[in-house]
Amino acid sequence: MTRGRFITLEGGEGAGKTTAMRTISEWLSRKGREVVITREPGGTAAAERIRELLLDPETGTLTPMSELLLMFAARQENLAGVIRPALSAGTDVVCDRFTDASRAYQGAGRQLGDAAVEALADLVHPDLRPDLTLLLDVPVALGMERIRGREGGPDRMEQSRPDFLERVRQAYLRQAEREPDRFVVIDASRPLPDVSAAIETALEAKWS
Amino acid sequence: MTRGRFITLEGGEGAGKTTAMRTISEWLSRKGREVVITREPGGTAAAERIRELLLDPETGTLTPMSELLLMFAARQENLAGVIRPALSAGTDVVCDRFTDASRAYQGAGRQLGDAAVEALADLVHPDLRPDLTLLLDVPVALGMERIRGREGGPDRMEQSRPDFLERVRQAYLRQAEREPDRFVVIDASRPLPDVSAAIETALEAKWS
Ligand SMILES: Nc1ncnc2c1ncn2[C@@H]1O[C@H](COP(=O)(O)OP(=O)(O)O)[C@@H](O)[C@H]1O
Ligand SMILES: Nc1ncnc2c1ncn2[C@@H]1O[C@H](COP(=O)(O)OP(=O)(O)O)[C@@H](O)[C@H]1O
Ligand SMILES: [Mg+2]
Ligand SMILES: [Mg+2]
Repeated sequence: MTRGRFITLEGGEGAGKTTAMRTISEWLSRKGREVVITREPGGTAAAERIRELLLDPETGTLTPMSELLLMFAARQENLAGVIRPALSAGTDVVCDRFTDASRAYQGAGRQLGDAAVEALADLVHPDLRPDLTLLLDVPVALGMERIRGREGGPDRMEQSRPDFLERVRQAYLRQAEREPDRFVVIDASRPLPDVSAAIETALEAKWS
Repeated sequence: MTRGRFITLEGGEGAGKTTAMRTISEWLSRKGREVVITREPGGTAAAERIRELLLDPETGTLTPMSELLLMFAARQENLAGVIRPALSAGTDVVCDRFTDASRAYQGAGRQLGDAAVEALADLVHPDLRPDLTLLLDVPVALGMERIRGREGGPDRMEQSRPDFLERVRQAYLRQAEREPDRFVVIDASRPLPDVSAAIETALEAKWS
């Protein structure tokens, strides 16, 4: 059985990732493919508990290294419980964030550096890399503007300062330059129909 | 300023580690030393939240790799928030379990192997090793007997099967053979006063 396609969505807060999940899964369904969607951190009961801990402002300060270890613990659960079983069964997986987010947020944003992220990626998924990563790129201020007024107020990660989010954005763009075969960068500052059209164009180009 | 002494207690469930913490910290205090005690997983607010997640039977099955990553996330918090600051200030630290427990429980008990544990130890504390590790050794059945009737029933780790706990015990003993300068193995199946006396003898031998 051919392994399913593994598609990841990346980008800063308010870029439109969660909105884009539907565009992608509908496109795949129209092509007659089975699709599973998931998100990081999350995807399984234990991983969602780790997510709660990571996003709850009550948790307070975590060292960047702990944040990274918790992200990879949640990732490992999602891989074991959702992503790997689906891919093995030939089902496509669309994931709202994956290891590129650890590179951008913990590696660059928290200034932990690349080595720790790569060491953990080698431990947790030495054999797995997304087939396609869509990077939804927006200026930090526009992303922040879009999520203002989100229910419940900003979570622990969203409370980050603009210089942190700017490092995240630049790290994503550098990563996309480093792996042009895997990444497609989408200008997500445009109106939603244009963003959706660009996503579909990227999918057609990859799997027409 | 001279760094404080870093003493760890290891052993299976019911070996008497928590009971021994007091013997050690009282001995150090009598020698006029400042002492901080802590436990793993735990020690800080965030680490105690990770502990809850690890020990709560409601969490259900975690893959061995996630369990290991969560243990190291808690360890990193305890190191950054408690252990390193104390040691740097010249205060002694007595810790109820440390990285040897990951070697024994996840590496051997869960059969994850040594490589992942060593990779994480290299990431999280490349520079730090206990000065003295007391391994309280009891047969698995005796340890289980001692904790039977513990308030609230067995936690997620204590629900483990006897063959798991036997692998843990044997891994601890092998680790002690591998590092005879750091480890002292104490026969903790004896009555408590004998165990306490053996612990004090080990401390006197190291720092008389
Ligand atoms: N291209 C767009 N133009 C305007 N608003 C958008 C666009 N894409 C998403 N949004 C809105 O911005 C907010 C954040 O989108 P969301 O998909 O939740 O972002 P993310 O998951 O990347 O944080 C939502 O209210 C969404 O409706
Ligand atoms: N040497 C001993 N002989 C008999 N009972 C003991 C001994 N050491 C500890 N206990 C008892 O066994 C139980 C488990 O001890 P504890 O220190 O909590 O073990 P651990 O922390 O290693 O799981 C406690 O009720 C304790 O009082
Ligand atoms: Mg989202
Ligand atoms: Mg105990």
